[in-house]
Amino acid sequence: MAFIRPDHNPSEQRLLSLRANARYILMSNFETTLHAFAQRLEPVFERHLTHDSLTGPGPAPDRLIAAMRYGALDGGKRLRPFLVTQTATLFGIGEKASFPAGIAVEMVHCYSLIHDDLPAMDDDDLRRGRPTVHKAFNEATAILAGDTLLTHAFAVLAEPACHPDPLTRTKLITELATGAGAGGMAGGQMRDLEGETGGFSRDDIATMQAMKTGALIRAAIRMGAILGDAGAKQLKALTRYGEAAGRAFQLADDILDLTATSEQMGKTTKKDSARAKPTLVAKIGLDAANRHLGETIHHAISALAPFGADAQGLKDIALYFAERQN
Amino acid sequence: MAFIRPDHNPSEQRLLSLRANARYILMSNFETTLHAFAQRLEPVFERHLTHDSLTGPGPAPDRLIAAMRYGALDGGKRLRPFLVTQTATLFGIGEKASFPAGIAVEMVHCYSLIHDDLPAMDDDDLRRGRPTVHKAFNEATAILAGDTLLTHAFAVLAEPACHPDPLTRTKLITELATGAGAGGMAGGQMRDLEGETGGFSRDDIATMQAMKTGALIRAAIRMGAILGDAGAKQLKALTRYGEAAGRAFQLADDILDLTATSEQMGKTTKKDSARAKPTLVAKIGLDAANRHLGETIHHAISALAPFGADAQGLKDIALYFAERQN
Repeated sequence: MAFIRPDHNPSEQRLLSLRANARYILMSNFETTLHAFAQRLEPVFERHLTHDSLTGPGPAPDRLIAAMRYGALDGGKRLRPFLVTQTATLFGIGEKASFPAGIAVEMVHCYSLIHDDLPAMDDDDLRRGRPTVHKAFNEATAILAGDTLLTHAFAVLAEPACHPDPLTRTKLITELATGAGAGGMAGGQMRDLEGETGGFSRDDIATMQAMKTGALIRAAIRMGAILGDAGAKQLKALTRYGEAAGRAFQLADDILDLTATSEQMGKTTKKDSARAKPTLVAKIGLDAANRHLGETIHHAISALAPFGADAQGLKDIALYFAERQN
Repeated sequence: MAFIRPDHNPSEQRLLSLRANARYILMSNFETTLHAFAQRLEPVFERHLTHDSLTGPGPAPDRLIAAMRYGALDGGKRLRPFLVTQTATLFGIGEKASFPAGIAVEMVHCYSLIHDDLPAMDDDDLRRGRPTVHKAFNEATAILAGDTLLTHAFAVLAEPACHPDPLTRTKLITELATGAGAGGMAGGQMRDLEGETGGFSRDDIATMQAMKTGALIRAAIRMGAILGDAGAKQLKALTRYGEAAGRAFQLADDILDLTATSEQMGKTTKKDSARAKPTLVAKIGLDAANRHLGETIHHAISALAPFGADAQGLKDIALYFAERQN
């Protein structure tokens, strides 16, 4: 075979092309599945953001509801609700029964995007291909829309429609609050802002990212497990999956921030390097980051071993995190 | 008696002086009681704002905890937790058993102060006699400190330490979320900001205030009733009390904003008129507002009739709302 140069080896070329093709098919299949899920979730999510649902001692102001809807509806991939549903499915919970918990996580995710985009925070004008909430409305309205999405997420979880057992509902609330709070997502955003002043080690970055992005992904998966009344061992395995999946998601995001265009992402890219944001990619370089991403996906998938073929949905999500182009 | 002018009638003067004295004693007694309550609550509240309590997938950043503590500890009168406790007392619930619910309400109250003080909102530099959180830290930290106080309020309510029955805990969460959300406190703040552009009727102002200030006071009282497993009639009576008490509190606040000094209040005063904030006092004048305050206190106290002498604590609170000087 020495007389044929490897790059002229037709069978190897063919193999590579087949792999690329398979990857493409896998991704487009997954994206179709995810999109179809989002389409089914959307009308239920939408009903949670109306005058009828956003009740209180007085009528919710139209402008506030409009800002909440603008920041939450139309455009999100609904990855976190999908994680809740896919995990709950492992325990025989039907898709619709997992919607309220998924919607609560998504409300928290959307609140965090609205607040993170504020001028005092990451100062972003573009999100999901549209002006950010404070650009489309104003800063005060954006702050309040974030506050109320966060508040109503807990109202959704407290309702009997979320799960018939009130103890399960309180566990979901604890899980979401710890994932979103000072030791989770919001704490991670605080660390991220502190990191802009420099001096972050690789470990500091890993901790920050595990909190800022990882914590809510982890919570989504654990909430699916809580809905399904998972045993301690199962919860542990799914937590390991969730933590690895969260790391993979953030790594892919940082890599995409360097390599993708704003059009592809629907938000401002190259901003991490422009603002000296502490990312692992900046620390270890693009090649090492890509290798690390591969290893992380492997960790995520290994954690699912106890669930066998039932966990194919969660495996696909982990692979998607590595391969996504936006 | 016609030959003695009323203002020279010694017995009438003496009566007025006795009434003023009685009022002074009542107020200073009440303030002593409230202050002693706050002193007992404070160490428990404080423990909820530490690394040990603010758990999550990662360690809460020191700076974030410092901002949460700065915005929540030292200085608050703890009126809302006192309302929770006084209401729960009607049903034989001990003070300590009502602390977690009270702390959750106070966390939400403190978050709302931090966010309302932001430059994009009411733009206040002074609160409780000290620089506001965004002045002492910065805007991003203030936004996150508010977000995390709100988030952890729900974590506190979801814990078994709050109440042994998980169904009761979910009811407390629903109550706090609806009181704080788009149809309650946050929606009221939105309406208040909209009202700065003018055109508010007396009804618009009443609705706005019932949401912005009233909703959380109402929620505090109803949460006390929920802790005590109140019956439907009792809950209704206490809700009526709560709504009237909330109106009285806001009326007194608006009157004080016009008549008190910044030193007395520990925050910037005269700002309502300076910013053309829609207040009832501006609409109907100081005298009518004072009369209206008296009527509202009367409504609040009448609602407590079914509870007889047991409700003395709640009656004192309503009187205090009318008489407070800061």
